[in-house]
Amino acid sequence: MFDQITILAPGLLGASLGMAAKASQLARTVKVWARREEVREACLRMDWCDAGFAGLEASVEGSELAIVCAPVDIIPELVEQIRPHLGGGALITDVGSTKAAICRQCKDQAGLARFVGSHPMAGSEKSGLEHARADLFMDRPCIVTPLESTPEASLRRITAFWEGVGMRVHAVSPEEHDRIVAHISHLPHLVASLLARQLGGSPAEWAALAGNGLRDTTRIAAGSPAIWRSIFANNSAEVMHALTGLEEQLACCKSLIARQDWSAMEQFLADGQRFRKGLE
Amino acid sequence: MFDQITILAPGLLGASLGMAAKASQLARTVKVWARREEVREACLRMDWCDAGFAGLEASVEGSELAIVCAPVDIIPELVEQIRPHLGGGALITDVGSTKAAICRQCKDQAGLARFVGSHPMAGSEKSGLEHARADLFMDRPCIVTPLESTPEASLRRITAFWEGVGMRVHAVSPEEHDRIVAHISHLPHLVASLLARQLGGSPAEWAALAGNGLRDTTRIAAGSPAIWRSIFANNSAEVMHALTGLEEQLACCKSLIARQDWSAMEQFLADGQRFRKGLE
Repeated sequence: MFDQITILAPGLLGASLGMAAKASQLARTVKVWARREEVREACLRMDWCDAGFAGLEASVEGSELAIVCAPVDIIPELVEQIRPHLGGGALITDVGSTKAAICRQCKDQAGLARFVGSHPMAGSEKSGLEHARADLFMDRPCIVTPLESTPEASLRRITAFWEGVGMRVHAVSPEEHDRIVAHISHLPHLVASLLARQLGGSPAEWAALAGNGLRDTTRIAAGSPAIWRSIFANNSAEVMHALTGLEEQLACCKSLIARQDWSAMEQFLADGQRFRKGLE
Repeated sequence: MFDQITILAPGLLGASLGMAAKASQLARTVKVWARREEVREACLRMDWCDAGFAGLEASVEGSELAIVCAPVDIIPELVEQIRPHLGGGALITDVGSTKAAICRQCKDQAGLARFVGSHPMAGSEKSGLEHARADLFMDRPCIVTPLESTPEASLRRITAFWEGVGMRVHAVSPEEHDRIVAHISHLPHLVASLLARQLGGSPAEWAALAGNGLRDTTRIAAGSPAIWRSIFANNSAEVMHALTGLEEQLACCKSLIARQDWSAMEQFLADGQRFRKGLE
């Protein structure tokens, strides 16, 4: 499907994508760009990686697709730097967890490679190359965020790429994406962090008594603070709306307990149960 | 270790306990009491169950240990009803998620079987006999809650029973138990429910975009509303304290976002990460 692709700043997602692209025969040649030598060397030790570069220009030369896997706050500058070195028919995408700011900053420029934003929802609280796996994307959702100016053919090509590694692709506008993920991804992360931070202030011996409920509910709080800081900074208005909604739920729940209204409480819990069972 | 035990109101925990007790040779004979005929029949079809009864008196006759696996709000009345039919040297325990009210109501009475409260933390969002497994308790924590009047020998015997099915046993007072679990178990449950309820009000198509983060964070919200309603009713004061703490965390988080103080936000997330990584 692609003769050559470049993965920039490979971590868990980028390295898994390299593996998956080779395994699915989506790319004949996979090149990587990484600032750090040990990352380039780690990639080169893996089957899927054909070449590793410290220079951006050489890393994308001749590639038909470049996938920028850097933290959200540096994606736009990397896109700007590689654009002149890709052919006009080439495509650029990313794996960032926010889309509106990135897509606005990476607007298409005449004669240069097009950018179509992507958010493959296959992350984990684990990061780094060592956790990469070819099946990371299998059956997971991927949101692609075309602009009104994005040609149908470019959108189809990016969609086919993500479907090729096993994802279910949904296309929405970058702004709609940010609104949705504020609720389904960024809010759950904050909720896990709030809970974990609160328990961090408890006596240390309580941790030995933790059951699976606490483990599950706080699992994603183990994610990288630096990566998530940028995500929240990039989507702060929508995240605030989601947090305000949570605040209202919390006030409602406290009021039921204060009034000792246990049948309303059962209904409250049943509302949550209905949503959660619907996810299975 | 026990010649005969009785499991009352077997569901996920009770049936798993029957399996585990037989597998670990902790009990030669395991009898069950269940109000519903289909539950008795389901138990009798399983290897571990030697006899099933609809009458309380017959179910505990000759047993050295009775384990009451009913919802927290009906544990005290079941304990009161079986006490006259057990020998004076017999023990009664339970698997309830709250302890102060239950232990107060089940205070020892001269010449009757003693009650020592237990909370094996091995539940799941799945309930019912069909999910029972002999290894449910393996390496999980169990909190036992002796009163000041509980003889050392009774506490040792209950502790040995839970250790026999593979649990790590911790003894604290019933009040201290309720304070601890309000934070490490009841609060996570409410947090998962709040989040699930809020998302339940979102457009239905968002659910298809949910990643593992949302799934993990809300998993326990699938638990039985009726069971959890009783737990919250039984531990409402401590749960309110825990919710107030969460409210403060939420206010702090919103203020960091409102002030766009991203380095303080990174520190906030790092606090949660430190606690969560400490659970592994």
